[in-house]
Amino acid sequence: MLLSLARRSSAEALGTAFLLAVVVGSGIMAERLAAGQPALALLANALATGAGLIALILGLGSISGAHFNPLVTLSLALRKEMSWRDVPAYWVAQIFGAFAGVAAAHAMFGLALFSASQHSRSGMAQGFSEFIATFGLLMVILGCARARPKAVAFAVGAYITAAYWFTASTAFANPAVTLARAASDTFTGIRPADAPGFIAAQLLGALAATYLFKWWQGARTVQS
Amino acid sequence: MLLSLARRSSAEALGTAFLLAVVVGSGIMAERLAAGQPALALLANALATGAGLIALILGLGSISGAHFNPLVTLSLALRKEMSWRDVPAYWVAQIFGAFAGVAAAHAMFGLALFSASQHSRSGMAQGFSEFIATFGLLMVILGCARARPKAVAFAVGAYITAAYWFTASTAFANPAVTLARAASDTFTGIRPADAPGFIAAQLLGALAATYLFKWWQGARTVQS
Amino acid sequence: MLLSLARRSSAEALGTAFLLAVVVGSGIMAERLAAGQPALALLANALATGAGLIALILGLGSISGAHFNPLVTLSLALRKEMSWRDVPAYWVAQIFGAFAGVAAAHAMFGLALFSASQHSRSGMAQGFSEFIATFGLLMVILGCARARPKAVAFAVGAYITAAYWFTASTAFANPAVTLARAASDTFTGIRPADAPGFIAAQLLGALAATYLFKWWQGARTVQS
Amino acid sequence: MLLSLARRSSAEALGTAFLLAVVVGSGIMAERLAAGQPALALLANALATGAGLIALILGLGSISGAHFNPLVTLSLALRKEMSWRDVPAYWVAQIFGAFAGVAAAHAMFGLALFSASQHSRSGMAQGFSEFIATFGLLMVILGCARARPKAVAFAVGAYITAAYWFTASTAFANPAVTLARAASDTFTGIRPADAPGFIAAQLLGALAATYLFKWWQGARTVQS
Repeated sequence: MLLSLARRSSAEALGTAFLLAVVVGSGIMAERLAAGQPALALLANALATGAGLIALILGLGSISGAHFNPLVTLSLALRKEMSWRDVPAYWVAQIFGAFAGVAAAHAMFGLALFSASQHSRSGMAQGFSEFIATFGLLMVILGCARARPKAVAFAVGAYITAAYWFTASTAFANPAVTLARAASDTFTGIRPADAPGFIAAQLLGALAATYLFKWWQGARTVQS
Repeated sequence: MLLSLARRSSAEALGTAFLLAVVVGSGIMAERLAAGQPALALLANALATGAGLIALILGLGSISGAHFNPLVTLSLALRKEMSWRDVPAYWVAQIFGAFAGVAAAHAMFGLALFSASQHSRSGMAQGFSEFIATFGLLMVILGCARARPKAVAFAVGAYITAAYWFTASTAFANPAVTLARAASDTFTGIRPADAPGFIAAQLLGALAATYLFKWWQGARTVQS
Repeated sequence: MLLSLARRSSAEALGTAFLLAVVVGSGIMAERLAAGQPALALLANALATGAGLIALILGLGSISGAHFNPLVTLSLALRKEMSWRDVPAYWVAQIFGAFAGVAAAHAMFGLALFSASQHSRSGMAQGFSEFIATFGLLMVILGCARARPKAVAFAVGAYITAAYWFTASTAFANPAVTLARAASDTFTGIRPADAPGFIAAQLLGALAATYLFKWWQGARTVQS
Repeated sequence: MLLSLARRSSAEALGTAFLLAVVVGSGIMAERLAAGQPALALLANALATGAGLIALILGLGSISGAHFNPLVTLSLALRKEMSWRDVPAYWVAQIFGAFAGVAAAHAMFGLALFSASQHSRSGMAQGFSEFIATFGLLMVILGCARARPKAVAFAVGAYITAAYWFTASTAFANPAVTLARAASDTFTGIRPADAPGFIAAQLLGALAATYLFKWWQGARTVQS
């Protein structure tokens, strides 16, 4: 039984807001406490983000499906597992929520609500990292969602914890997250000028994984 | 089948005692071993607390429901998922247990059973952090409890691990925990004068999440 | 369907051997790599032990029940969930396996197979820590085993990860582990003279938890 | 219902590629960020690898079975749980995928696609470590796969996290991984000359575990 679009969209907004609060907030805390030890800061940031994702997907999955990511929404629409009519509301909610989450994190740590990031993340290796990161994320979600829907929260949390470390870009893998992190001049920020390249690479990765699964899983109708 | 209130309350007391022993004890150990590296100390404290919550909720969930938090009890009563008649016994058990747990942690580490904390935690940003932390905790619990009751232990443990890092207050999110940590002049303590502000913010956060779910889930009767 | 006692005992021996290899081996690795940072060494040791327990209980649970601890075997016998006739074979297997695991860890790291530990762990606070650690371990196992048998592996792994940090003794909580760690003059060792006090405290903790659950759960027959 | 061999093999290749990208990529990141703190580097590498395995097995298990390891494939064939006819395709896919994953990791971090490792890992203690590591890995997989197939991902991820720490060799436990890591002159590399010894020890460990389970579980036909 599907809840109304207003309820589902508000859950997407709230969940994406919490996701950004976790990413940006734990990054601020980590940088403050681990000054001079970047490995320790990234470890705290990665474990907090992975754990946060597990909690948020478990908590909000039954309300909205817990996408928190425009490319997950897009991929499910391409797979006909979600109505195209609901896609714009999900996207708006995710982007709005992402910025709200950044503002909440900044407020918790006594910073201005928004600030343009100075953190340069550019070049081919960074773009390739985002392609791989997003391809892997969608591969894990699509592979898990049909066969083991109850395990998706753990798969996503574990994947992102790993991806913070195994990609050179620390795995943004999410356009809403990328846009909002451009508004945070902190540990997890990204220079606004570098955001479009990240988002393009993410889109390619998500599409590649979606079409790969089309081949793997065929055109079977889904039962959830 | 519900156990007698005496049995359930004793499990709430024991579980909350262990929760405080984990929070305060691991904080003492972490501060002793990681002197001068606050990020490492908080990481150990956060992972120990998250893991401890998973174990305690899995262990005692079948006895008392494993609330260990007066605001969880309040929220479930407001949702009519718990009898108001049992609320006072749960609250007394949780608060009594919390102080017993602090005393146990102090005894294990050779300290006086109680000591007033000197750890200042005040100001708007701290209060806002506690509002967010508790709102998120209840959001995760209420969202998970109906749809995926078996996953609640993992959702709560993961959430608190993240919340130690993404909130500026390190996410007390629990009035019984807050009161008892005021009696511990160690890493995880809070100055008694700062406790009321924390508890007020926590109450607001819990109520906000409870009413949000009333909108999301409607007035459906619950089947557990 | 129960396997023969020979098969089950050999699984107990092998599982306890791997448990000790994990505890002692990861302690050696941690001390070597984190020289001078005891918090980092204990964090690695705690996470490796918790993760190892999850894997071993999931792997061998279907063969022997995966006790790996004489007090778990004792408690289940007292609860009539295990035949007293099988208890001696389990105890012998656990103790034999524990020493074999220490020898294997030492061999992997190029050390003599056994060496008497010089690591002093004595005094009231240490004994109280072992009482609490073992009480909590049995509380978690007994609470989880009936209501949520599939979650026991995660509950135990999470509990021990937390207990390494929240007890002053780093939670041995297991007489077979205690005896064998007396034969390892490494990070996780215990002076042979201190072992009896630890074991006595562990026994008291296990009995207290067993009788508490008798009250909580009554004399119901168990269906596994 | 089994997918075609082409689909399953491609999933094995992709999964093994991601596994190597996780192992090697997180090793590069860890060494760069934690220069001079080998314990911190290994902790990040171990947690990323364990988390990555959980995600990959959950994501691709329903497509190919998620072996990602020639010895898992061999063991299942010996147990008649996999057709011998499919084994060569799985092996080729795993080895091809492993090298592709190393190249991907190197590309993400701006390094040459392949480079012969200079990291010496030889001697009896290293070989014994690989025997133990692989024996344990197969023991966990075989014990879990029949009784609790849904838990295999968590068992394997937890086991490898522990094994990075409790073995002196940091638990390669996989011939495809060993070969490909010989082509990476980074934190997780192995000198090509040392690879054959590792692989021989791994094979012995896997065979020992396979025959042990033959005794434990008898010749029962398997129902998956």
